[in-house]
Amino acid sequence: MKIVIIGASGTIGSLLKEEFSKKAEVISAGRTGADITVDITDAASIEAMYNAVTDIDAVICVAGPAKFGALSELTEEDHFIGLRGKLLGQVNLVRLGLEHLNDGGSFTLTTGVLADDPVPGSSSLALVNGAVNSFAMAAALEMPLGLRVNVVAPTVVADAAEKYADVFPGYDPVSMDRVANGYLRAVYGKTNGRIFRIN
Amino acid sequence: MKIVIIGASGTIGSLLKEEFSKKAEVISAGRTGADITVDITDAASIEAMYNAVTDIDAVICVAGPAKFGALSELTEEDHFIGLRGKLLGQVNLVRLGLEHLNDGGSFTLTTGVLADDPVPGSSSLALVNGAVNSFAMAAALEMPLGLRVNVVAPTVVADAAEKYADVFPGYDPVSMDRVANGYLRAVYGKTNGRIFRIN
Repeated sequence: MKIVIIGASGTIGSLLKEEFSKKAEVISAGRTGADITVDITDAASIEAMYNAVTDIDAVICVAGPAKFGALSELTEEDHFIGLRGKLLGQVNLVRLGLEHLNDGGSFTLTTGVLADDPVPGSSSLALVNGAVNSFAMAAALEMPLGLRVNVVAPTVVADAAEKYADVFPGYDPVSMDRVANGYLRAVYGKTNGRIFRIN
Repeated sequence: MKIVIIGASGTIGSLLKEEFSKKAEVISAGRTGADITVDITDAASIEAMYNAVTDIDAVICVAGPAKFGALSELTEEDHFIGLRGKLLGQVNLVRLGLEHLNDGGSFTLTTGVLADDPVPGSSSLALVNGAVNSFAMAAALEMPLGLRVNVVAPTVVADAAEKYADVFPGYDPVSMDRVANGYLRAVYGKTNGRIFRIN
């Protein structure tokens, strides 16, 4: 099985790279320091990645920018960071990947607790997460050739809990093992259109 | 009470105009044939509306384009119709309206059943609806001066049930009275950050 992980250098991404490498061939993808360079905010860059990497069985995305900030201070352009990034970036990974993945392959996208349980300052992130959750449920109804699309939506993860403690007061962090399990279920299971809420 | 209804000429909008006119002053807003002209896909047009209409107590939005179509056929530009329209249009109505509404005022946005229960062809609409639902829950945490933001999310409505029968097979239509009630609760109630799912 060949798995492309976009954002493999991040907190969750590096964990997934290690975990999935146990049983699969993992290709890391990202803007820098990855096996293959891709900028998911640019559809042409995604298309180039799919043309460069053949025989893909699974795509996992743990990347995508969005801007945290006060509702009254976020500009339209600030919102477009998330719309073009974590939202449309993940939509385009699915949309453009439909013709490239092997039969039975899967897309696993990443959102988070903010879609359902936001904090002050998260209006742009919340909308991006809610959008991707609903997109995956809808796209699942139209997947060709047995392809699947699912989402992992973690709350605060243990390895980043200290960094985000002030933003998520009282949110119980989840262990990195539980986060990894969400992605393992999405990739090795048979679910389609499921949101794995890890919290 | 002065209420601005954006999209007052549509199926739901015309109903709301009649209903709210019983007890409030209703200003219709839209691209054509309304008391005030506004194009919600254009932030400058929204800003101009807020500068032109004073003393607003409630904004109701039942407008905003998004494109229906097969996942494999929707282009990035097709997705941007909804992102710039029903999604960012409603975000901007709230964001830019924060400084214009009277203390205690409310924003009532519109999404729909597709956020939670999509049909084939609805990937772009679903993501827009999911985004606005999550945005409202997040924005509610940051509303100044007792302002409120809520969402009404109807399933297929009775007056459009025949038109959309092929798209929503087996979806029970809801009566126009129940749809109106969602907006009445959002405007005249005290809820903030609530999604009124009418189905």
